[in-house]
Amino acid sequence: MNIIKTKDETRAAFAQLKSQGKTLGLVPTMGYLHEGHISLIKKSRRECDATVVSIFVNPIQFGPGEDFEKYPRDTKRDIGIAEKEKVDFIFSPEAEEMYGKNNLAYVNVEKMDKVMCGKFRPDHFRGVCTVVLKLFNIIKPDRAYFGEKDFQQLIIIKKMVKDLDVDVKIIGCKTIRETDGVAMSSRNKYLTEKERMNAAVLYDTILFAEKEIKKGLRDLAEIKKECLDLLKANESVKNIDYFDLRDPETLDELQKNKNITGSILIACAVYIGKTRLIDNKVVLL
Amino acid sequence: MNIIKTKDETRAAFAQLKSQGKTLGLVPTMGYLHEGHISLIKKSRRECDATVVSIFVNPIQFGPGEDFEKYPRDTKRDIGIAEKEKVDFIFSPEAEEMYGKNNLAYVNVEKMDKVMCGKFRPDHFRGVCTVVLKLFNIIKPDRAYFGEKDFQQLIIIKKMVKDLDVDVKIIGCKTIRETDGVAMSSRNKYLTEKERMNAAVLYDTILFAEKEIKKGLRDLAEIKKECLDLLKANESVKNIDYFDLRDPETLDELQKNKNITGSILIACAVYIGKTRLIDNKVVLL
Repeated sequence: MNIIKTKDETRAAFAQLKSQGKTLGLVPTMGYLHEGHISLIKKSRRECDATVVSIFVNPIQFGPGEDFEKYPRDTKRDIGIAEKEKVDFIFSPEAEEMYGKNNLAYVNVEKMDKVMCGKFRPDHFRGVCTVVLKLFNIIKPDRAYFGEKDFQQLIIIKKMVKDLDVDVKIIGCKTIRETDGVAMSSRNKYLTEKERMNAAVLYDTILFAEKEIKKGLRDLAEIKKECLDLLKANESVKNIDYFDLRDPETLDELQKNKNITGSILIACAVYIGKTRLIDNKVVLL
Repeated sequence: MNIIKTKDETRAAFAQLKSQGKTLGLVPTMGYLHEGHISLIKKSRRECDATVVSIFVNPIQFGPGEDFEKYPRDTKRDIGIAEKEKVDFIFSPEAEEMYGKNNLAYVNVEKMDKVMCGKFRPDHFRGVCTVVLKLFNIIKPDRAYFGEKDFQQLIIIKKMVKDLDVDVKIIGCKTIRETDGVAMSSRNKYLTEKERMNAAVLYDTILFAEKEIKKGLRDLAEIKKECLDLLKANESVKNIDYFDLRDPETLDELQKNKNITGSILIACAVYIGKTRLIDNKVVLL
């Protein structure tokens, strides 16, 4: 496995691969790899000739007061996991290498970046889109793998790629869950034992909403209200940023019976103690 | 010469070129080609194995009330010129082909897009950056050629390419002028005979500022005031958006004696009758 720190080395390594007609899969991560990342890596290894994992805690996608500084990092452990999974390359640049001293160019996917998490993290998706486009331009992968756990991120990146004619195929991969349903996330590390136990309330509530929808109920405001009550009843839930029922393609909020076509995205962002967790599920009607 | 209208045809044609190891030069235009464009084409033909001229009057870089509708178009004439100049490909998509029905992704080069023309045309550079990045992603040129006449555009595109790690070399090319100094522009077509004559006041005033600077004068506010007076004295000058002295790399406004390092950009946007014209010169100290 080759560990690369600079853009120039990356370009040289991957130009060589390309000239041999090999396909390249990219798994962009912020490190602290877990089973979710491993499932992306495995998928890339099945579908591409070579796989690169980028490890970069991207400063510009964190807002003031968010957890950039304390975001869990363990490069040594990550390298061990990547090696075990037979990753071909790790790209782990420093922030200075990625952004230089005076970065001014940013990508926005307007409107979609203002709802759900975007409402509470105003520049988050600008930061995500910008770093992802940079990674694509540096690495030039054929395919890139993203978890459905960050559903809004996945949809926004797909939209960016489509609207800007980026020549990379975006592959969404199923959320990997613990046995109690909690979605795998590096941020789960922040939870106390009790909070970790109570964190199951996110997915439990999503499954409750799914059941209501599958029963044929379409009063989405009522379902939402019930779900908020379920969340609030949990002693570890300290704040609810949102619990939404939306169109999974446009992220538009769904109205009772109106514009519901084929599927419903159930998504939430909830503080378990001081830790902000997100989860979602797309229900096919 | 091959005239291509769709992204898919473009990708197919240029992938073939690339696989043959040929270099590709792109000259992005809004059509109505003049000597300025021809100089870009000639440079591309000297430096690249194949040259593509894109012709696309980009709706999203025009603001409400601007001249998108009446912008001069003459595709037949453009094709004749391109053929004479031995251009290999013309890419001239329809707006629907470029943007589809619900474009949401945009590129911004922040701060630099708020000054000079950006102050008076708020979404202009967002539109320029977005279409240029799309053209780069569709065509994948090795080099792209832009006139120095649109200096702010050139600098902003260079910044976008650097900050987003776009793998295209941006080549700035000298402004081509009529014998009286007026910079070639498709918009000169709007001018009456008298206005066309008086349009020389832009470059005359820039040359006056240059002379003052070359004399060693560094009271930039005073020079600017004199230049504004010169412009106002011209009977065809109906409005002055700006006449600025700036750092040609950062576009920061220069202060008397302060932070003047090596060169000064003199740039202006002036209404000659109802026609907004721009011009500039970089003075090396």
